[in-house]
Amino acid sequence: MTSNIKILKPSDPQGSNLLSQERARTTFDVKKLTLALYGSKELERLNRILEIVENDPVFDKSKIYYMGRNELFEHALKKDKRLVQLIKKHRWDVEETHIAELFLDLPGPVRMFIPTIFGQGTEEQKKKFLIPAIKYEIIGCYAQTELGHGSNVQGLETTATYIPETDEFEIHSPHLTASKWWIGGLGRTANHAVIMAQLKSNGKDFGPHPFIIQIRDMETHQPLSGITIGDVGPKFGYNATDNGFMLFDHVRIPRSNMLSKYSQIKEGTGEYISPPNDKLSYGTMVFVRAMIVTGVRVALARAATIAIRYSAVRRQFVDKDEPKKLENGRIVETSILDYTMQQYRLFPVIAQAYACFYTSKAMVDSYLNYMKQSSGGDFSSLADLHASSSGLKSLATSMAVDSIEDCRRACGGHGYSSFSGFVTFYQNYLPNTTWEGDNYILTHQTARYVKVVSNKNPEAYSQSNTNPTITYILQFLNNPNQTCTATTPSDFKNHELQLRAFGHRAAYLIANAVDQIDNHKKSWNSMLIEVNRISRAHCQYILARNFITALQKSHQPNEDERLRVLHDNPDLMEVMNSVCNLFVLNTMEKELGEFLECGYITSSQSKLIRSQVYDLLKEIRPNAVSLVDAFYIPDFMLQSALGRYDGKVYETMFDWASKEPLNEITLDVNPNSEVLFRNNDYKGMARL
Amino acid sequence: MTSNIKILKPSDPQGSNLLSQERARTTFDVKKLTLALYGSKELERLNRILEIVENDPVFDKSKIYYMGRNELFEHALKKDKRLVQLIKKHRWDVEETHIAELFLDLPGPVRMFIPTIFGQGTEEQKKKFLIPAIKYEIIGCYAQTELGHGSNVQGLETTATYIPETDEFEIHSPHLTASKWWIGGLGRTANHAVIMAQLKSNGKDFGPHPFIIQIRDMETHQPLSGITIGDVGPKFGYNATDNGFMLFDHVRIPRSNMLSKYSQIKEGTGEYISPPNDKLSYGTMVFVRAMIVTGVRVALARAATIAIRYSAVRRQFVDKDEPKKLENGRIVETSILDYTMQQYRLFPVIAQAYACFYTSKAMVDSYLNYMKQSSGGDFSSLADLHASSSGLKSLATSMAVDSIEDCRRACGGHGYSSFSGFVTFYQNYLPNTTWEGDNYILTHQTARYVKVVSNKNPEAYSQSNTNPTITYILQFLNNPNQTCTATTPSDFKNHELQLRAFGHRAAYLIANAVDQIDNHKKSWNSMLIEVNRISRAHCQYILARNFITALQKSHQPNEDERLRVLHDNPDLMEVMNSVCNLFVLNTMEKELGEFLECGYITSSQSKLIRSQVYDLLKEIRPNAVSLVDAFYIPDFMLQSALGRYDGKVYETMFDWASKEPLNEITLDVNPNSEVLFRNNDYKGMARL
Repeated sequence: MTSNIKILKPSDPQGSNLLSQERARTTFDVKKLTLALYGSKELERLNRILEIVENDPVFDKSKIYYMGRNELFEHALKKDKRLVQLIKKHRWDVEETHIAELFLDLPGPVRMFIPTIFGQGTEEQKKKFLIPAIKYEIIGCYAQTELGHGSNVQGLETTATYIPETDEFEIHSPHLTASKWWIGGLGRTANHAVIMAQLKSNGKDFGPHPFIIQIRDMETHQPLSGITIGDVGPKFGYNATDNGFMLFDHVRIPRSNMLSKYSQIKEGTGEYISPPNDKLSYGTMVFVRAMIVTGVRVALARAATIAIRYSAVRRQFVDKDEPKKLENGRIVETSILDYTMQQYRLFPVIAQAYACFYTSKAMVDSYLNYMKQSSGGDFSSLADLHASSSGLKSLATSMAVDSIEDCRRACGGHGYSSFSGFVTFYQNYLPNTTWEGDNYILTHQTARYVKVVSNKNPEAYSQSNTNPTITYILQFLNNPNQTCTATTPSDFKNHELQLRAFGHRAAYLIANAVDQIDNHKKSWNSMLIEVNRISRAHCQYILARNFITALQKSHQPNEDERLRVLHDNPDLMEVMNSVCNLFVLNTMEKELGEFLECGYITSSQSKLIRSQVYDLLKEIRPNAVSLVDAFYIPDFMLQSALGRYDGKVYETMFDWASKEPLNEITLDVNPNSEVLFRNNDYKGMARL
Repeated sequence: MTSNIKILKPSDPQGSNLLSQERARTTFDVKKLTLALYGSKELERLNRILEIVENDPVFDKSKIYYMGRNELFEHALKKDKRLVQLIKKHRWDVEETHIAELFLDLPGPVRMFIPTIFGQGTEEQKKKFLIPAIKYEIIGCYAQTELGHGSNVQGLETTATYIPETDEFEIHSPHLTASKWWIGGLGRTANHAVIMAQLKSNGKDFGPHPFIIQIRDMETHQPLSGITIGDVGPKFGYNATDNGFMLFDHVRIPRSNMLSKYSQIKEGTGEYISPPNDKLSYGTMVFVRAMIVTGVRVALARAATIAIRYSAVRRQFVDKDEPKKLENGRIVETSILDYTMQQYRLFPVIAQAYACFYTSKAMVDSYLNYMKQSSGGDFSSLADLHASSSGLKSLATSMAVDSIEDCRRACGGHGYSSFSGFVTFYQNYLPNTTWEGDNYILTHQTARYVKVVSNKNPEAYSQSNTNPTITYILQFLNNPNQTCTATTPSDFKNHELQLRAFGHRAAYLIANAVDQIDNHKKSWNSMLIEVNRISRAHCQYILARNFITALQKSHQPNEDERLRVLHDNPDLMEVMNSVCNLFVLNTMEKELGEFLECGYITSSQSKLIRSQVYDLLKEIRPNAVSLVDAFYIPDFMLQSALGRYDGKVYETMFDWASKEPLNEITLDVNPNSEVLFRNNDYKGMARL
């Protein structure tokens, strides 16, 4: 590069100054808000673990964006191995390990432990497989999905047939569609697998059950005889993970390899011992979905952080009505964060992130609460918990994927560069809409439950009515023609009124569906579009409710530290109240059709909502940058030239581009080169 | 791989049979519909060029999904070079070349010609640069965007200062943000560039002007002295293109290198000759946007083809109300295309694709019509044309990106695999929302225009009123309280009624904005959210109108062949009518909030719309596969295991996965390997 480049600066004003100015405008204590989000114990852990991982050379991210798939895969293996060493060295527990993985942000081939064995293995099986797995003496993967079967586990084709003569199971793949597919860590890494296969004994079928199998030689790492394994190939993202396929050709395993905590096959007779009720496995699902919603809150916070900081630094056009001037009087282009359209695109994402903070907290709390009850034999809250967590996983992950992409596009052309920090982030986040329950299929759970609830005799509830779903359904049934009382934009800041609106709309959709199915004999399939609407309406009600509840002082002495900090600081309460209102009213605006259709609000009231949303954008504008700073997402995790805390956007874009390996390859410039165009190569060939 | 794999088949029913059954159900002549879309001349060209490119070994796509960036880039150079040879050999014109590029579907580094020189160069300059460029004796790129400037061309920082002493321009980059950025083909390929730079002469600024510069040595291919060039690095997609950056350190070029067809600097005196009005350049923009909308129609057709065919082949769950049986009576899972939710996700995309077919046709027709008028000095239709094409580019490309992703997700887990044909397709399509005018900025053009129109005195139009925008605005102004007359679901199939609804909603939004700005002195910035709504409403009206118009017999003797075929075949008219109604009513459903807010339809009418949409899904179901077959998109272009014409989905997924190079690399399995986990490697290290 020629010499003058090094001394070149971006034109004024500098990004770092623009961000400091933004931070100087803030009306609240950013550190306190961060404390109110994470609490002191979690903050200590975040800082301690970040300190370790960001200074470990093995975790250096500076070359990651330039790596091809093979390179990336080997890098991920090194990363996983180093992580395991650190877990050992620092004795990190599961949560600390999770934090480290969050910062490293590179989903690799190695799963950190095998919950299936933990959950479904007998004590013996745990001794034999779980302990070595935890010690990484064996590397396991979980093989359920098949080439021909995703959501419908009952339809899996792989068979496990009991052979009494040898007291073994024969694992077999009868068709190509039976090939295990998408299995993380299987392609090149794992030497053991837990597989789901159709259990057969004495000519009877007992449905899918888990079996543990060694799949590769422990020394040569080659697949064992009768087992075909490979990587499933390139993907939208997750290219550091070796998602694999696997086929079995009459492979024998001892009977003791069937995970038998709940159900088992008896030696010799092949008699099947069926499991107790599966309520416990539902509990696990609830927990996994709570974790996914926690992931949503992080993903939204991360996307908003990049887009908001860059929008404060990036200037484009001069706003004729309000031109911006430098100290020297020179008129400069307006920061795009000052354009209302940009605010309208980005501020709701900040609000979604905060909303998900409080809903993921509520989900974890109710899960722990349920575990306490269920250990005492009380499963009464499970149905509601399972239904809500299904719909919330669906709603929140779809919202996250859309918002990440909205934030990326709001960064203009540079959002398309990997250096934006959006590209691999988005690509790796995408599968959340499909795994752990496809986002459309999941809505069936939620809708089925609320239908059951509303079918019951209202009186049955009137006594002990603590269940929020029942509350809003009863409110509607008692007064189906209730309408909204708002007459001014600010009336819509009333949280009572907001919740009544969301409850009424959800209950209206439910009541219609119940009528169609029960009185007009509509088939479930013919109602799937309503099913999806009902689930969304129900879960948007929950998101709004959890946010609003978090803002209400509980007055309990043992109140959670995070909520106490929030409630004790008026400056935090004020800004969080604006954010909460923006989340609620922007959601109403997006779903306006349904709020109008159910007759709860009128056409003129919808105008009041819109104008209140604009006022909220103005309220939030001075705090925009600090609201994302409060998420406390380190540059090490963002890996974004646009979203850097210090605002050195253009210097970083240029520095990273100058390291692109394509700039290093030598192109063949000889006249007969296949690849390069040369003088006179095509004399007189083309025509206009 | 073990031997039994080769003989494995997918479980019954086979995909090929399922697709043949779908095709047997069709109610119309697929070949005729294809003819009605493309016309015989275009069809002949498509077939002729496909025949050539799909049989050329240089264009083999079988390894593309496995290529890393450098490999892909060199492959693209070979592809471009081969394409140029074929253009020469077959004497392809611009349109034929475009068809070949469409099928090859690999945006590479080489631009096929340099329209800027063609449009803005003098005859001399064309002789000197255009002819060699067309002959590929020189490879050019177009350098406008800078690191710090995208949408706002006026704000570019690169300077071109006239030096009278030597009769030269000095090209210079004063700041880092002045670095040219995102320039296609610049990174490693081009040896010449047209750059936009701020023209300065005699201490005066004359704004951005185009200059042509040699940037690399014709023999060594090294950047010339004072010029710094590089590739901008990895991106979301387009990784076969070397988008580059470029900085100038006081580089001198002769005065004759300023493209001077319109404006120029006089020798010695440095006097500036300003250009005539730029109406002609607007014409070019209109054409480019018409081409982008044509691209939208292809992108939507391609996405729908993959998702619909795979949904017919993929079976998941058994629909309890209507279980599917094989000949042998065995109950099999239901094809997901039979689930109403899947139909609701996918059929509207088919409808959008057909809608864009007719709007792109209308845009091209009116552009040609305008060119005829303007050559006679009549520019009267330009304003409307430019406003509509701006908003349509914005609306259509945003719709396309969203629909491609919806289709991908509707393919479940396999949609995430590159083998789905969605991944690079989506990644390469994305920039359409940003380039040629950011999709949000463009809506300003449209809204400004319709505001001007509605500000004019209605009487001024009452005479010659052929302009559709004026028509609906007048209809509204004459009767702002008009409401919808529909009382049954099928009333909403009335095209008159549909257009009145779309016109009323658009005019209502416009009238509100005009009132806010003119009577309440609202700033333009405070209206940007409405601006965006107005543009969308206006352009959705146009899309609906063009589709509906295409279905109306013109009774002109010289009627376009494509329309004649459509109108002469009742079976085609019937299915296209269903598709048109689905497009119109599904759009109304999505925008329900605005149709209710403007008071044109009531809450109970919105229920009629929904129920009519469900009826349309039923109407279209038997024709779904044939409606995408009619798009006539060859497997060679789809490169999709899921969307193959023959339905061999699972065989192809497996075959392509088995070719993944990651399956070939040898992992270091020695005990001290950095990458591989080994027995006893971590004895007793981890804890639960």
